[in-house]
Amino acid sequence: MTTNEPIRVTVLGLGAMGGALATALIDGGHRTTVWNRSPARAEPFAGRGAAVAATAAEAVRASPVVIACLLDHASVRDVLDPLAADLRGRILVNVTTTSPAQARELAAWGATVGVDCLDGGVLAVPGMIGRPGASVLYSGSAAAFQRCRPLLHRWGTSTYLGADPGLASLYDLALLAGMYTMFAGFLHGAAMVAPAGVTAGEFATRAAPWLAAMTDGLRHFADVVDGGDYAVAGQQSLEFSDLSALVDASAEQGLSTEVVDMVQRLIRRQIDGGHGGEGFARIIESIRTG
Amino acid sequence: MTTNEPIRVTVLGLGAMGGALATALIDGGHRTTVWNRSPARAEPFAGRGAAVAATAAEAVRASPVVIACLLDHASVRDVLDPLAADLRGRILVNVTTTSPAQARELAAWGATVGVDCLDGGVLAVPGMIGRPGASVLYSGSAAAFQRCRPLLHRWGTSTYLGADPGLASLYDLALLAGMYTMFAGFLHGAAMVAPAGVTAGEFATRAAPWLAAMTDGLRHFADVVDGGDYAVAGQQSLEFSDLSALVDASAEQGLSTEVVDMVQRLIRRQIDGGHGGEGFARIIESIRTG
Ligand SMILES: NC(=O)c1ccc[n+]([C@@H]2O[C@H](COP(=O)([O-])OP(=O)(O)OC[C@H]3O[C@@H](n4cnc5c(N)ncnc54)[C@H](OP(=O)(O)O)[C@@H]3O)[C@@H](O)[C@H]2O)c1
Ligand SMILES: NC(=O)c1ccc[n+]([C@@H]2O[C@H](COP(=O)([O-])OP(=O)(O)OC[C@H]3O[C@@H](n4cnc5c(N)ncnc54)[C@H](OP(=O)(O)O)[C@@H]3O)[C@@H](O)[C@H]2O)c1
Repeated sequence: MTTNEPIRVTVLGLGAMGGALATALIDGGHRTTVWNRSPARAEPFAGRGAAVAATAAEAVRASPVVIACLLDHASVRDVLDPLAADLRGRILVNVTTTSPAQARELAAWGATVGVDCLDGGVLAVPGMIGRPGASVLYSGSAAAFQRCRPLLHRWGTSTYLGADPGLASLYDLALLAGMYTMFAGFLHGAAMVAPAGVTAGEFATRAAPWLAAMTDGLRHFADVVDGGDYAVAGQQSLEFSDLSALVDASAEQGLSTEVVDMVQRLIRRQIDGGHGGEGFARIIESIRTG
Repeated sequence: MTTNEPIRVTVLGLGAMGGALATALIDGGHRTTVWNRSPARAEPFAGRGAAVAATAAEAVRASPVVIACLLDHASVRDVLDPLAADLRGRILVNVTTTSPAQARELAAWGATVGVDCLDGGVLAVPGMIGRPGASVLYSGSAAAFQRCRPLLHRWGTSTYLGADPGLASLYDLALLAGMYTMFAGFLHGAAMVAPAGVTAGEFATRAAPWLAAMTDGLRHFADVVDGGDYAVAGQQSLEFSDLSALVDASAEQGLSTEVVDMVQRLIRRQIDGGHGGEGFARIIESIRTG
């Protein structure tokens, strides 16, 4: 199987994401078999050149590579547990969002059953699949990743993180932690300016480029964390970063202060521990030690 | 006074930020008088072409425009209260970080004393002043803003937000809410991947561009908030955004879950209120109503 050769591939699950992944594989010229629990969702794929399997077992037997994109870990086990014999000797790429522990559990099950497992974390919404900006992180079987690259690169940038099957999921969740937290911070800001007659759209016009520019600072925090010396010169100190003014102004606007209180608590624990003169990156110690 | 004419200007406070602001004005060819409580910090400015005043009163009397960049609101009042008579008829631009209420208080005092007040919120670190990317928000006297533009544009992009003196500070704090919250989310993510042997630097290499890209989504949230219909089609629902996997994986790594718990609480309150099928932007209602 060389890089340009079409690969026979099966996609289990044709929801918003599974459907987008299957479409990109079909468009990439791979011989694609699809299956979905509710047959109605699979029907349109026949017209697009896919083979539509009547059962998950039939779908699995059609290809050496099986992609699972179902709701969650439980639904993956529901569908795959009865198909252990059919899966033997094949590659399973699970891009269903699961926890690191669940990804490790699936890989362990795969090892007993004779399935080579690769876990994927999709950093994209369905509309981005196959377009610039879509990124998928993988971990688990390096051999499976190598063999599937011609398929995987149809979806976006593929990154293999390592043999620990839980790594892609862990990384994915860590990035989502940053994203959801930033979303909450933005909406807190939008709520702060609203009483002054500023629309959320107007606020976003300034906040989106501002926050994008501020991501530059993350590399500096990372250098400090990796360097192990939170007191290194040239940083804004934790004392200087005290968020009382932010908390007070939020309260004055009648808002819940829980978004900014969260950051303030992380800062305070370090100041109270005698580290107020050190840099902001030190709040990672508040997270590490609870 | 036209746009290109040098303006006589005084800078009170030559800390990290005040010093950078004064330097940019001197470099811009404006006749600059400086003063700092501790004289040692003012000395080097004599060599750079500034007039160094021995007292704050002398400094104020030297120029029609007075910039204050001190530690906080209290230090501004400490310095300016005794100088009411000297300030009469001048413009005061206060770029010290203060709360919206404090900015309004200063403007009210200015009105009684006969000083035209402009409040500024600096969205930059000292090293960025006068360079691309530095931005300063202003509110308060529109006349003062117009008259001072030739000075202010030396520092970076100047934006006048409106007559309410508290607006620049409010906006500044709202942007900082987004920034600090994002920083906390990033450091939480870095703490999550660390036990798997991923350095903070490696994580930042992926997280910084990822978060920058995710700021695009903020405009969509803003549209939903301004549109007033959180149930509008095409969004990821709150139920889908449930962060249990993220909270659990954080706990499994032995981390404090308070960063992600904060977001999860905002989500849960909306789901519990029967809005689980609506979009993520709805969490602004959790912030608004506490
Ligand atoms: N959408 C995104 O933006 C996005 C982004 C990154 C990752 N993901 C992940 O991708 C996965 C799929 O997401 P999606 O957006 O495609 O979700 P979706 O549109 O809700 O589709 C869910 C799919 O799972 C199937 N399913 C659910 N329970 C099942 C069960 N017990 N047995 C068999 N099939 C079952 C559904 O089949 P029926 O049609 O029969 O219900 C459907 O095909 C999720 O893990 C999600 O977290 C999604
Ligand atoms: N640095 C930044 O990144 C940054 C960014 C945005 C906004 N700001 C804001 O800019 C302002 C100045 O910050 P900075 O970084 O320049 O701080 P800084 O380096 O600590 O300097 C503080 C200045 O305030 C003076 N001062 C303090 N208390 C005083 C008092 N009671 N009477 C007279 N002078 C007093 C100090 O004088 P002495 O030299 O005599 O102590 C010094 O000139 C702050 O409000 C800060 O929030 C700073």
